Amino acid sequence: MNRPPLPTIEFLQTPTSPAWVEQAIAHLDTILLDHSHCERKAAGVALNLMFRYPSNSELVRALTSIAREELEHFELVNQHLERRGIALGPLSSPPYAAGLKAQIRPQEPDRLLDSLLVAGAIEARSHERLGLLASHCPEPELAKFYRSLMASEARHYGTYWILATTYFDRDRVTARLNELAVVESELLSTLHPEPRIHS
Amino acid sequence: MNRPPLPTIEFLQTPTSPAWVEQAIAHLDTILLDHSHCERKAAGVALNLMFRYPSNSELVRALTSIAREELEHFELVNQHLERRGIALGPLSSPPYAAGLKAQIRPQEPDRLLDSLLVAGAIEARSHERLGLLASHCPEPELAKFYRSLMASEARHYGTYWILATTYFDRDRVTARLNELAVVESELLSTLHPEPRIHS
Repeated sequence: MNRPPLPTIEFLQTPTSPAWVEQAIAHLDTILLDHSHCERKAAGVALNLMFRYPSNSELVRALTSIAREELEHFELVNQHLERRGIALGPLSSPPYAAGLKAQIRPQEPDRLLDSLLVAGAIEARSHERLGLLASHCPEPELAKFYRSLMASEARHYGTYWILATTYFDRDRVTARLNELAVVESELLSTLHPEPRIHS
Repeated sequence: MNRPPLPTIEFLQTPTSPAWVEQAIAHLDTILLDHSHCERKAAGVALNLMFRYPSNSELVRALTSIAREELEHFELVNQHLERRGIALGPLSSPPYAAGLKAQIRPQEPDRLLDSLLVAGAIEARSHERLGLLASHCPEPELAKFYRSLMASEARHYGTYWILATTYFDRDRVTARLNELAVVESELLSTLHPEPRIHS
């Protein structure tokens, strides 16, 4: 696979608002628990795509690697939760991911393109927000942890982008990415009242 | 978690027939492709249980580790497929796993107990059959590979057993395991015409 420059800006049309940072810093425990769910869900997304496209060997290879890394992060986040005495448990999801998934067109090959770009957009936003947590978190150990995850989150959205351009014409990828990026930013334009990674 | 001795025999009521070994050795490429699907499906089973029981921290911890290992094996099997020039692709499933899943009672907490024991039974059978492949495979490199996977397959069914006894009374686990082991062996009593790990 060729490695074109990572299109960070294209994935994220609007930067995260200071209101989210304030909300997140005021609820670090909840954000950490939600982060645990995000890592597990991200592994699930990669695995589901591997199930759906078992013949696409580049996709299978790249997403196996992503799924393994998300599970490793899931374990690390859970260790932080344990150290803080926070029990694992369910947490309601903000409307973000469902709103993005509703954009995935049901017919192939659109479905594959949209699935890859939606997953990439979520990874790009996670990367941006973990970076904000790394910069603003008042607890040095936790800030360091968030910083340590950023490189692989960037690699992940890069991988989804590269996979999209592996299976689709670059102009088509860019055009669809632009449409999805508008929706992605709109979904975050009103701060969700419950503190979440994607509130 | 305490580590009671692994109940191999209880998981498997009847040993695999020589007919399966013969069928498998005659179709090593298909068996290897099916093995790839089995590893991916096993990761999916572990991840689904983690999704369903997010508050059961021992389950989450143990199954994260299993899912990571299954994905590692999935990558290794796929490397063998690539070296042999076998393209990744879909393969029909034998009736085995669906037959076992049909035994999972829908009401909790039975559903959790049955899910753990069915997953454990599949791992135990995989362990036995990879061992048979390791002994009978005429290709030394492939035989060595199968041998290398056996220890972790054994650890996996041990983990499912331990989790069952973590959440349920040991007598109840043993009684249900005995019932499921009968079904498991019955499902394999007629050799499936298509060569598979669980034909």
